[in-house]
Amino acid sequence: MLTYRDAGVNIDAAEQLLRRLKPLIRSTFTPAVLTDIGHFGGLYDARFPHYEHPVLVASTDGVGTKIKLAIRLGIHSTVGQDLVNHCVNDILCCGARPLFFLDYFACGQLDSAIAEQVIGGIITACRQNGCALIGGETAEMPSLYAPGDYDLAGTIVGVAERSRIIDGSSIQPGDLLIGLASTGLHTNGYSLAMAALREHDLETYIPELQSSLGEALIAIHRSYAATLLPVLDRGLLKGLAHVTGGGIMGNLSRILPRGVSAYIDWASWEVPPLFRYIQRAGNIPEEEMRRVFNLGIGIVLVVAPEHASEVLALCAEEKPVVIGHIQAAS
Amino acid sequence: MLTYRDAGVNIDAAEQLLRRLKPLIRSTFTPAVLTDIGHFGGLYDARFPHYEHPVLVASTDGVGTKIKLAIRLGIHSTVGQDLVNHCVNDILCCGARPLFFLDYFACGQLDSAIAEQVIGGIITACRQNGCALIGGETAEMPSLYAPGDYDLAGTIVGVAERSRIIDGSSIQPGDLLIGLASTGLHTNGYSLAMAALREHDLETYIPELQSSLGEALIAIHRSYAATLLPVLDRGLLKGLAHVTGGGIMGNLSRILPRGVSAYIDWASWEVPPLFRYIQRAGNIPEEEMRRVFNLGIGIVLVVAPEHASEVLALCAEEKPVVIGHIQAAS
Repeated sequence: MLTYRDAGVNIDAAEQLLRRLKPLIRSTFTPAVLTDIGHFGGLYDARFPHYEHPVLVASTDGVGTKIKLAIRLGIHSTVGQDLVNHCVNDILCCGARPLFFLDYFACGQLDSAIAEQVIGGIITACRQNGCALIGGETAEMPSLYAPGDYDLAGTIVGVAERSRIIDGSSIQPGDLLIGLASTGLHTNGYSLAMAALREHDLETYIPELQSSLGEALIAIHRSYAATLLPVLDRGLLKGLAHVTGGGIMGNLSRILPRGVSAYIDWASWEVPPLFRYIQRAGNIPEEEMRRVFNLGIGIVLVVAPEHASEVLALCAEEKPVVIGHIQAAS
Repeated sequence: MLTYRDAGVNIDAAEQLLRRLKPLIRSTFTPAVLTDIGHFGGLYDARFPHYEHPVLVASTDGVGTKIKLAIRLGIHSTVGQDLVNHCVNDILCCGARPLFFLDYFACGQLDSAIAEQVIGGIITACRQNGCALIGGETAEMPSLYAPGDYDLAGTIVGVAERSRIIDGSSIQPGDLLIGLASTGLHTNGYSLAMAALREHDLETYIPELQSSLGEALIAIHRSYAATLLPVLDRGLLKGLAHVTGGGIMGNLSRILPRGVSAYIDWASWEVPPLFRYIQRAGNIPEEEMRRVFNLGIGIVLVVAPEHASEVLALCAEEKPVVIGHIQAAS
């Protein structure tokens, strides 16, 4: 006699988890949320009275193999924050502010304590970013994920005024590139970093890093929304590139119009010690480092020269640096 | 000397895949899509001129361990359709029509041919449901997924007129429950089914099923949008329950107001042979079957008795059956 539970799926545990999380999830709700948890869809008011021509901006992402690091370190409260902040930064690049979020959590066997920490991290970051968690899926898939393993993905939907959407089209030679500091690897390059550090102990304090390798690697992906939404509201940005897979150049190229290219002065900021440590450990070519990692720059702002000092002042807490400029494409 | 590629991540392959998929993805675009592919966010017009009070309805889901079946059978073109149709049905239960979709595809090693089939299935179903694919993430995570394995999740956003949202609140004793036929297991209960069928050959033709086990099990999760949107537009439905995890009763309970319960006449329809085959193979108790599987009923409509004949006629192609009624809770 066989039951779902024998086959490795525990519906009751999932329901208990949701019951425990409900009050926390509700704490992310804004007045625009029109539904409670447990319906077939999350409901969100789409009237947007403060917008002339509202445009929804949506993005889906995961946190890559940073998940494996979290599992290895037994630190489960931060990957959810990585995920939300990553998504917030992505839609920020179009000039959008976050409205709501939905998560996907998949595991081999549902460990309620771990799931609660992971989803707790999502809730924390949703609250910090003013984003309502209106839906999600928790999947127990014993044949796909090894015991203890899990994966995490999420979708954000935000809103922007159509006339103020930042699509990079006005970028021209002479514009300046301002980089804001990252907190570490954010969510990119973990497969390479962990391959490079395969034989390294993650727990010993390393003076160069002022922390252990594990602590430096798990640092939470930063959200730039609080800093940049006011800058966007003032219309001071021509383009924004979130530095994810593909590095600084790869992501800038996503927003540059034809006929221009980016010149980066790679000596204009100090690459944080963690990246150099990984590079040495793996003997990774500099070019590969630039293609894979953010190297200390979490997001790049494209700004007309006449606005640069104002933008630098508004972003002062994010350690802004002019890292290059736009030039005619050669 | 170590590179990202040595660490198992091939950025170039992902970029080539996206290039090949671009024209197909664009084929899902509606006039409300305001962006092309490759930006940091997908853009969708949020003016909704035909709505007085538009409400967004969003849902995230996966396809569970049906993924493992697809991998085992080497059939990758259908799970994307399962995913989209599942999500479409979920928001349909709130009375919403689909606007846009975003997918998450995660694998151990990116096999472009397989990824193209999987995402091709998403595109097919997006087109069928009038839903634009405006974003997605393809993640290569060699340390999390075994070679050949992948996972898939997706998020749908739709829109409903606030005054016509179906939330079940008007359901009362005497209302009828009409079930529409499922095409098979849809996307639920695969862990239990595969455990029950562990030692069964999936490829031999089985007269009872009029197909092989594999063909019967991989049957595509049906979208009820084309049938039910016109019924919703006429205001004929008090509630809709998509039969997913939790079975008919578990999902009906998500929409029933306090004070009423559902009476199901389990003999009112013929449970398709596939479910009986699985039950016999695993010696699964009837109660467990009802809690895990849809047993041939893909979605349940709650209808006032005076509207039943009209609804039955409008849904004639979906093999509708009155499967029970609403009663005062005991």
